[in-house]
Amino acid sequence: MLVADLQTPALLVERTLLEDNLARMSAALPGPRLRPHVKAHKTTALARLQADAGHRGFTCATIREVEGMAAAGLGQDLLLANEVLDARRLGAVVEAGARVTLAVDSEQTVDAAAAGGVREVVVDVDVGLPRCGCDPSDAGWIADLARSRGLEVRGVMGYEGHLMLETDRKAEQTEECMAKLLAAHADVGGELVSAGGTGTYDVNHAATEIQAGSYALMDTAYVQAGLPFAQALTVLARVVSTNPQGWAVADLGLKSLGMDHGNPTLPGMTVWFCSDEHTTFSAESAALPAVGDLVRAEPAHVDPTVALHQRMHLVDGDEVLESWEVDLRGW
Amino acid sequence: MLVADLQTPALLVERTLLEDNLARMSAALPGPRLRPHVKAHKTTALARLQADAGHRGFTCATIREVEGMAAAGLGQDLLLANEVLDARRLGAVVEAGARVTLAVDSEQTVDAAAAGGVREVVVDVDVGLPRCGCDPSDAGWIADLARSRGLEVRGVMGYEGHLMLETDRKAEQTEECMAKLLAAHADVGGELVSAGGTGTYDVNHAATEIQAGSYALMDTAYVQAGLPFAQALTVLARVVSTNPQGWAVADLGLKSLGMDHGNPTLPGMTVWFCSDEHTTFSAESAALPAVGDLVRAEPAHVDPTVALHQRMHLVDGDEVLESWEVDLRGW
Repeated sequence: MLVADLQTPALLVERTLLEDNLARMSAALPGPRLRPHVKAHKTTALARLQADAGHRGFTCATIREVEGMAAAGLGQDLLLANEVLDARRLGAVVEAGARVTLAVDSEQTVDAAAAGGVREVVVDVDVGLPRCGCDPSDAGWIADLARSRGLEVRGVMGYEGHLMLETDRKAEQTEECMAKLLAAHADVGGELVSAGGTGTYDVNHAATEIQAGSYALMDTAYVQAGLPFAQALTVLARVVSTNPQGWAVADLGLKSLGMDHGNPTLPGMTVWFCSDEHTTFSAESAALPAVGDLVRAEPAHVDPTVALHQRMHLVDGDEVLESWEVDLRGW
Repeated sequence: MLVADLQTPALLVERTLLEDNLARMSAALPGPRLRPHVKAHKTTALARLQADAGHRGFTCATIREVEGMAAAGLGQDLLLANEVLDARRLGAVVEAGARVTLAVDSEQTVDAAAAGGVREVVVDVDVGLPRCGCDPSDAGWIADLARSRGLEVRGVMGYEGHLMLETDRKAEQTEECMAKLLAAHADVGGELVSAGGTGTYDVNHAATEIQAGSYALMDTAYVQAGLPFAQALTVLARVVSTNPQGWAVADLGLKSLGMDHGNPTLPGMTVWFCSDEHTTFSAESAALPAVGDLVRAEPAHVDPTVALHQRMHLVDGDEVLESWEVDLRGW
């Protein structure tokens, strides 16, 4: 099948770039040093390539991602790096034979883990991003509480997410965040210090494992941050209209692009704006395409873009090699 | 079933507010004066309520929406208000007995309509929003071309989308846009002058039918524009973490909210930021909720929010009355 035969808009993954990204990360963080985050691609077929590269533990953001990974046979060591108040579906996944570790940061989430049938937890610690995670000084008693409820405490996690696109003193700031996590770890114990992401994979030396996800497919925000991974993901679209006043319109928009990091990039073009099913653009350094031409847009943020699509297509230039279900969507 | 039993995040539609919105619009634009746009809800169960209110013609933005509406028995008069270069799937819908009218704005899109088996078209005219649509002076020859290809030309359409949230001279500006559309219509002929949206439903007096969609569920952008429709749609989320420094985190984020119009609104709270599966917020005029509490967020833009969800739940306060598939997603 050819790319030109695809219904647009469509997610394309350039095989050689994906393979390069996976190989580069595996060289830097081999085997269990990387716990790939599936939220960035939501696709078990892609997770399988990461497992083949030696990473058998995965990070998930939702119960649905945990269920889907386990159902795909990738449940050797799943970390749900998020808090839940009802862990019964996770308990069922454990009962069915997968290994699931759940983040906890409060008495309520410890109780939910125990009540739901989860057996292993990590204590989630606030390291500077104002989101989930307990104060580092509370990690010890939360671990004790978990153990008193019969839970195995595998260690700690923390996410320095506010530093992912940082350009000033990223290494030093990461170290400051990790000092908080290591202090908590001293109180908690366990083998895991799980942290990091694509933006800090090479400067976070404190974590025993890095939870990077975006590196596989990438987006323009991370490319602009100077990371050594290639833009493997694009959104294929077709030009459906051109206007003599100098603009063209392609059939991708707010329903096929995560927009929180801004407009997509169309190489050689200036993007004017996106609406539900359209992107209007004009020529910058290349000629304006004609009606019927295909364009490949680079999304600004990979995670929410992927969540809008039912499938992604592995391609080699103009040829479609495989089509993968984005099978971890929903909750 | 109770709202508290739903897996979060979840789309909620408050029944009384939805019914009020539908009734108010039907009173203003009865029967064929309104051609509801399904892109704003992507749900045939909701479209059926609009049909029950007397609106038998619908507007669609994608081929998939046309297919799904026809399959649901709502294919009496479907307008695909968008250009396509391959109309074969639409031709199949026509062949199966639905009425499908397709927008065209160029020789290529006329050719695609004829080649694909579509029988009826409208000429899409640029009325000021830089997107699809021919120059008004070109509408006549495009209509002639379509007729020469054996297509029935039902009239014209144009979308003054740049005026939807306008506050300055909206009526006058709409009239200026519609003057262009009426000039094109004089060259094209046909019974339809299709235009407008929720933001101009009461000031566009030139169109024979208005393509409004957002009025049914609404979003904060339209509410802030002062329209007389209520916020019927919310995203239910659960507080999964609170921090002694004064913030809370709920389990909705970039994968459950369209973000192009900005952050969601949490009544009584100040929203700090959204990440993939989280929204961090602090108290403003109400007390910060506790871990486990439910919150209902008002999305800033309804259309891309709906596209991220598999279903929406019709509720009456704390009770779930029905669950509807968002069955028109994808392309």
